Amino acid sequence: MILSRFGPVGAEVPALRHDGDWVDARPVLGARPELGGDFGPAFFAAGGLTHLAAAADELPSLDVAGQRQGAPIARPGAVVCIGMNYAAHAAESGALPPEQPVMFLKLPNTVVGPHDEVAIPRGSTKTDWEVELGVVIGRRIAYLDSADEALEHVAGFVTVNDVSERDFQLAVSGGQWSKGKCCAGFSPTGPWLVTPDEVDHGSLRLRSWVNGQPRQDSSTADMIFSVGEILHHLSQYLVLEPGDLVLTGTPEGVALSGRYPYLSAGDVCEVEIGGLGRGRQLFV
Amino acid sequence: MILSRFGPVGAEVPALRHDGDWVDARPVLGARPELGGDFGPAFFAAGGLTHLAAAADELPSLDVAGQRQGAPIARPGAVVCIGMNYAAHAAESGALPPEQPVMFLKLPNTVVGPHDEVAIPRGSTKTDWEVELGVVIGRRIAYLDSADEALEHVAGFVTVNDVSERDFQLAVSGGQWSKGKCCAGFSPTGPWLVTPDEVDHGSLRLRSWVNGQPRQDSSTADMIFSVGEILHHLSQYLVLEPGDLVLTGTPEGVALSGRYPYLSAGDVCEVEIGGLGRGRQLFV
Repeated sequence: MILSRFGPVGAEVPALRHDGDWVDARPVLGARPELGGDFGPAFFAAGGLTHLAAAADELPSLDVAGQRQGAPIARPGAVVCIGMNYAAHAAESGALPPEQPVMFLKLPNTVVGPHDEVAIPRGSTKTDWEVELGVVIGRRIAYLDSADEALEHVAGFVTVNDVSERDFQLAVSGGQWSKGKCCAGFSPTGPWLVTPDEVDHGSLRLRSWVNGQPRQDSSTADMIFSVGEILHHLSQYLVLEPGDLVLTGTPEGVALSGRYPYLSAGDVCEVEIGGLGRGRQLFV
Repeated sequence: MILSRFGPVGAEVPALRHDGDWVDARPVLGARPELGGDFGPAFFAAGGLTHLAAAADELPSLDVAGQRQGAPIARPGAVVCIGMNYAAHAAESGALPPEQPVMFLKLPNTVVGPHDEVAIPRGSTKTDWEVELGVVIGRRIAYLDSADEALEHVAGFVTVNDVSERDFQLAVSGGQWSKGKCCAGFSPTGPWLVTPDEVDHGSLRLRSWVNGQPRQDSSTADMIFSVGEILHHLSQYLVLEPGDLVLTGTPEGVALSGRYPYLSAGDVCEVEIGGLGRGRQLFV
């Protein structure tokens, strides 16, 4: 299944891709108040994907022409991030590959649509891009026994640009990265939520471009810790809930490497993961 | 005003302290759906405190005898924390006082009631306490001009135990503290939310005890960065929203100092801030 949301900020219409067209998910959500009215925590917790699949043939088509595309999920309860999860990116950042997943958090209010404009924060000279495989949690995760078990708790995958301000993250942070990760609009997400049956999440090509020039080009096969290993590891330290978003790290090819300039107003950044679609953000 | 919530987990009844008794806030919330039915983000965003004050005389009394006390706020959208904000605590942790506020995040799902049992996480040998002044945001905060302006955006103050697992935070974290801060139940909050007019937040005594033996005993006057300075600083890097919880750091006297043993099953930890009440947690 492929899901998305279309419409103005805060009034997005949840939609399902069906037979090559977008159909309106609202009849399913309206008939079941326990789904919470959107692709949010309640939707995933209450088996919304199953209900949606069962009703897909009867849903009305949705005219999305000219509509803004929102993030394919409503605001998550948490955005959990893994750092330094590709060896070449760790090296370009001046770090050794970690022995265990390195975890930090972003504010859930950073999640925006995949094509929304992103404001370069006041005082920023080092706004950077990071294409990342995002994992949307489908079922509560705590103290899992194995990486294989973890995958049963995944609702789907998304493309995310984990936008980062490197001075805020590294120079004025006291070493805690979140200060450079939480600026407004810093998590463009989507265009689609793709369920696990539709993609081989362990072998997806990740790419990014700035003004059409290639930057990152790697594969999720190069992750140090796989999706299952990450979720299994996190589950030993915290509880993940339906609708939460887990970002799995970025490969080499960001501006922090020194090989490319940081983003300036007017730059267009694109991030794409094979099968999950491409986001395109104008930085302003 | 003093607010709290009473009842089982997930079914707490919001209540107001009025003329020495607890009164039931549900009539106010029921009459105004825009308040979201609880002391959560929608309540603070839609002026819930003002509506509650106006109706206080007409609210029915609430029998709280024998009731569990929940956190005085519903689950926040974000829990933002400041580290090393008391010079003596920075020293006992082996660090220099920071030149700028050091920020990290906790998962919002760690917020629990002030007297709830806290499970020592699997594999933990270094579970520690931290009494902390918590600030609940009343109005959206972004790019504030001054520390004074920041205080106008505060809904109230709460006592929080910022429970921490020091090996998870420092030894297996790659330096990012959140892994030791997000275990289930790690943010006991309350018992009360107290509005700013009721306390001098810049001069509150903070204390903690383990099994009745004193541990921390300091004053918010010893903060390196004041509440206003913290919110003003954060507002340059992120957007805080109504109902968000900001933890302002802990003073000296935690187990990390080496002066006291870490918590074991059966220990009782108490945390108190003058005017904001005391939380008491059995560790299991």
